[in-house]
Amino acid sequence: MTGSATESTPRFDKPLVIAGRSFTSRLLVGTGKYRDFDETRAATEASAAEIVTVAVRRSNLGQNPDEPNLLDVISPERYTILPNTAGCYSARDAARTCQLARELLDGHNLVKLEVLGNAQTLYPNVVETLAAARTLIDDGFDVMVYTSDDPIVAAELASMGCCAVMPLGSLIGSGHGLLNPHALSLIIEAAQVPILVDAGIGTPSDAATAMELGCDGVLINSAIAHARQPALMARAMRKAVEAGREAWLAERMPRKTYAASPSSPAEGIIGS
Amino acid sequence: MTGSATESTPRFDKPLVIAGRSFTSRLLVGTGKYRDFDETRAATEASAAEIVTVAVRRSNLGQNPDEPNLLDVISPERYTILPNTAGCYSARDAARTCQLARELLDGHNLVKLEVLGNAQTLYPNVVETLAAARTLIDDGFDVMVYTSDDPIVAAELASMGCCAVMPLGSLIGSGHGLLNPHALSLIIEAAQVPILVDAGIGTPSDAATAMELGCDGVLINSAIAHARQPALMARAMRKAVEAGREAWLAERMPRKTYAASPSSPAEGIIGS
Amino acid sequence: MTGSATESTPRFDKPLVIAGRSFTSRLLVGTGKYRDFDETRAATEASAAEIVTVAVRRSNLGQNPDEPNLLDVISPERYTILPNTAGCYSARDAARTCQLARELLDGHNLVKLEVLGNAQTLYPNVVETLAAARTLIDDGFDVMVYTSDDPIVAAELASMGCCAVMPLGSLIGSGHGLLNPHALSLIIEAAQVPILVDAGIGTPSDAATAMELGCDGVLINSAIAHARQPALMARAMRKAVEAGREAWLAERMPRKTYAASPSSPAEGIIGS
Amino acid sequence: MTGSATESTPRFDKPLVIAGRSFTSRLLVGTGKYRDFDETRAATEASAAEIVTVAVRRSNLGQNPDEPNLLDVISPERYTILPNTAGCYSARDAARTCQLARELLDGHNLVKLEVLGNAQTLYPNVVETLAAARTLIDDGFDVMVYTSDDPIVAAELASMGCCAVMPLGSLIGSGHGLLNPHALSLIIEAAQVPILVDAGIGTPSDAATAMELGCDGVLINSAIAHARQPALMARAMRKAVEAGREAWLAERMPRKTYAASPSSPAEGIIGS
Repeated sequence: MTGSATESTPRFDKPLVIAGRSFTSRLLVGTGKYRDFDETRAATEASAAEIVTVAVRRSNLGQNPDEPNLLDVISPERYTILPNTAGCYSARDAARTCQLARELLDGHNLVKLEVLGNAQTLYPNVVETLAAARTLIDDGFDVMVYTSDDPIVAAELASMGCCAVMPLGSLIGSGHGLLNPHALSLIIEAAQVPILVDAGIGTPSDAATAMELGCDGVLINSAIAHARQPALMARAMRKAVEAGREAWLAERMPRKTYAASPSSPAEGIIGS
Repeated sequence: MTGSATESTPRFDKPLVIAGRSFTSRLLVGTGKYRDFDETRAATEASAAEIVTVAVRRSNLGQNPDEPNLLDVISPERYTILPNTAGCYSARDAARTCQLARELLDGHNLVKLEVLGNAQTLYPNVVETLAAARTLIDDGFDVMVYTSDDPIVAAELASMGCCAVMPLGSLIGSGHGLLNPHALSLIIEAAQVPILVDAGIGTPSDAATAMELGCDGVLINSAIAHARQPALMARAMRKAVEAGREAWLAERMPRKTYAASPSSPAEGIIGS
Repeated sequence: MTGSATESTPRFDKPLVIAGRSFTSRLLVGTGKYRDFDETRAATEASAAEIVTVAVRRSNLGQNPDEPNLLDVISPERYTILPNTAGCYSARDAARTCQLARELLDGHNLVKLEVLGNAQTLYPNVVETLAAARTLIDDGFDVMVYTSDDPIVAAELASMGCCAVMPLGSLIGSGHGLLNPHALSLIIEAAQVPILVDAGIGTPSDAATAMELGCDGVLINSAIAHARQPALMARAMRKAVEAGREAWLAERMPRKTYAASPSSPAEGIIGS
Repeated sequence: MTGSATESTPRFDKPLVIAGRSFTSRLLVGTGKYRDFDETRAATEASAAEIVTVAVRRSNLGQNPDEPNLLDVISPERYTILPNTAGCYSARDAARTCQLARELLDGHNLVKLEVLGNAQTLYPNVVETLAAARTLIDDGFDVMVYTSDDPIVAAELASMGCCAVMPLGSLIGSGHGLLNPHALSLIIEAAQVPILVDAGIGTPSDAATAMELGCDGVLINSAIAHARQPALMARAMRKAVEAGREAWLAERMPRKTYAASPSSPAEGIIGS
């Protein structure tokens, strides 16, 4: 995390750049778990996301020509589609799924890799993830990669050429927020590529916390789709991500044991 | 906290009403601790606050006619001025300070009462606070009252007629955030008047958390004034308060041990 | 909290002294909520407590001569009996209850005062508590007093002559542990009399944490009585209190961002 | 974590068995970071540990015949010596270090494997750790293995034949305690071999918390060696580990929002 309060220049904003593309929004959203396509569309619009992830194995991206196509709702002309490998438990399955996505999406190279350890926890299998990432990068993919909060694995994924590393806050779909902000900070401090927190966010305050830690973005699905009012929650998440980013730029006040401690000189009347 | 996910109707927004006045913004800000009036003005505008609190004993509201007047910067025509009794350690001093404010502000009745226990911690003295609140209400004031996170004292302040109760998140000026959300929830659940968290907020995620708990607003001063870029932090706080409010309205997803737990049925392809 | 790692002399142990009596054990226990007197006896013995509190309004201390007397199980010859005012909601009721206890216990002056705010939360009513403490001290009682974690109220109770101040960790019977260790530290740092954490402890780690903060003892009832195996939990609590006390005396290692940080010099082979 | 409060039989204690050896103590200690051998001896004795780990690369176990030998202080006749690979950053180095230890210790097969990711964080490199574990098991070692809190990696290490899995609480030497108890619980719930928390414990309350989660033991070094009074802290840690174990056996009370909630029936006078 660069930029402490003692630096000579304040932080200024820069766009998020992933695989050569530049984005204004730092909130990425998923398309699963909604009741219907109308709800998906309304929430996605309210989120103001520019990158939208779709589970290749669970969504119809044209595989089933007689059924409604998710891409009619989430248009590739409007959004950067991010096919993901949800439901894959081996490097091989994940690689195949990405290849399928590339075919369905006319040569689209940007993917979100996730290789899961088991169906109960949906925790990533980092060994298989490392293997799949190598394969996919060699095959010409731009790989955004879901991983644990292990800083050594995260650094390895970045150094092999992943275009974004996406550590979990807590288990996928759990809504437990950021269970180990300290581990996330280790990853962020050492980051060579964008770091996006990608699982577990349950509330806007969780999303803001992630951004305040200095991460580059967050990906949210369940917390929006499973809120009682998804579109309203999507709007809340958008504001929270912006708030967290601006707070990181603005640099927070130091924590003090007492306001009247030495670092907080007594003040007189302002302007006098 | 009314309105669980099992209620029949979703929550909808209502304006914040204090002492008969209606407000859109749920972020109240202070005017202390800024470097100069320009910074005060810029941050206040960026916050979009409608209620702005001023420390009667530390600000020039006209007491010193030859010096710059804070009210030229924070105009009573644009903002609801909320004189506060910062620096008072007894009910008597606090009451006098409110009376002085009423004179300076042409009969203005709305005040924020704070009676502190000592200069080191700035923790409220709840016994003196209760006494001062009674005196001020009898004297015709509309009393918003800073207090501890003691739910019994908070309920007593509401039932004697305070128009808003303002429990602390942590010590004034400490930036420690919400040290005891459980205590704040007890106060919010039993609330008969608006509850505003009034000390200790350090970051936008703290502010969002307060709103997600169901409180009606937050008051922030140090976290904006002592950020490296105050106006940018003010904007972040505005968004965080809105995000937290909307999240409370939208009702968050339930926390789950595992996403695949019984409350999370396996899903097929959406739309198929 | 006196005694940082930079002091010239290490901390050494002293007995706990309350109202002129000296105690070795820093674990106080209650007698409520057990299935029967056998369980009460076994758990009390396993706790090695020297002070045992009894709810005057809920226990038979001789009021009902035809029924089993708690004092036959918890003998005043072996234990320091601490009558408490559980179930009292006003200063007046609490004072009367203490007077009844003094009669039943042949002039016994040591009492634990608790005046509750309401039956749902069992949170203390600090205004009534302050009033009752004054009355009881004037009436010759040695008053140990249950209170909130408000440091101003705690200091006031000590300065009026209470012989021990007993702030809550969380709500009575909740088992939520120490919800606000920061507030407890404020009380401990300013303490003029013994500080004992008196509600909410759920586990041995909670008890150890309280002692590590520097408090002088803890009082536990529900966490022992409502464990599946109360006597075994009582023994665990005894060890945890001793562990926490010894850790406070031994002074913990400093927290470090990294072990290899400047405060942690690289080490060679020991003994070489 | 087997054994909820609704099971038909209470939990009962069993010895800790690692690689066919049975142990009474569940506190393992290290020998590094002490000022001198006298302090090492005193603290080790006070801990009542039966397994003592020694860093092969940093301790003289006979490599330097003219210098004091750690094994004269920590006798293999009294303690189970656990050579560890601290300071190794590759599977190859770690395997060699274990072979060296086996030679120095006359065919001793029990080792603690740690392969670190970098010198700043000392976080484990799980990929190299998995590789080293395979090599060492094939070479006839009994491998206790330090790892991250990744439940998939932990399960893989157990299923390949490691005799104990030792996830971190936080960074080695940091004293930050258990930063992610939820991740540790996932490992414990799925455990096929003993789980011992092996880094980051700073206080007895941390150690008790680990045991309350249901882990089988803890390994502590810095928190004892860097306390101001190491032998006293060692004794505190011993008690805390016993307390945490007994609490897990005794099964804690349920957490309750209010004591007076439905799960807490109103009580009459005991014995009446």
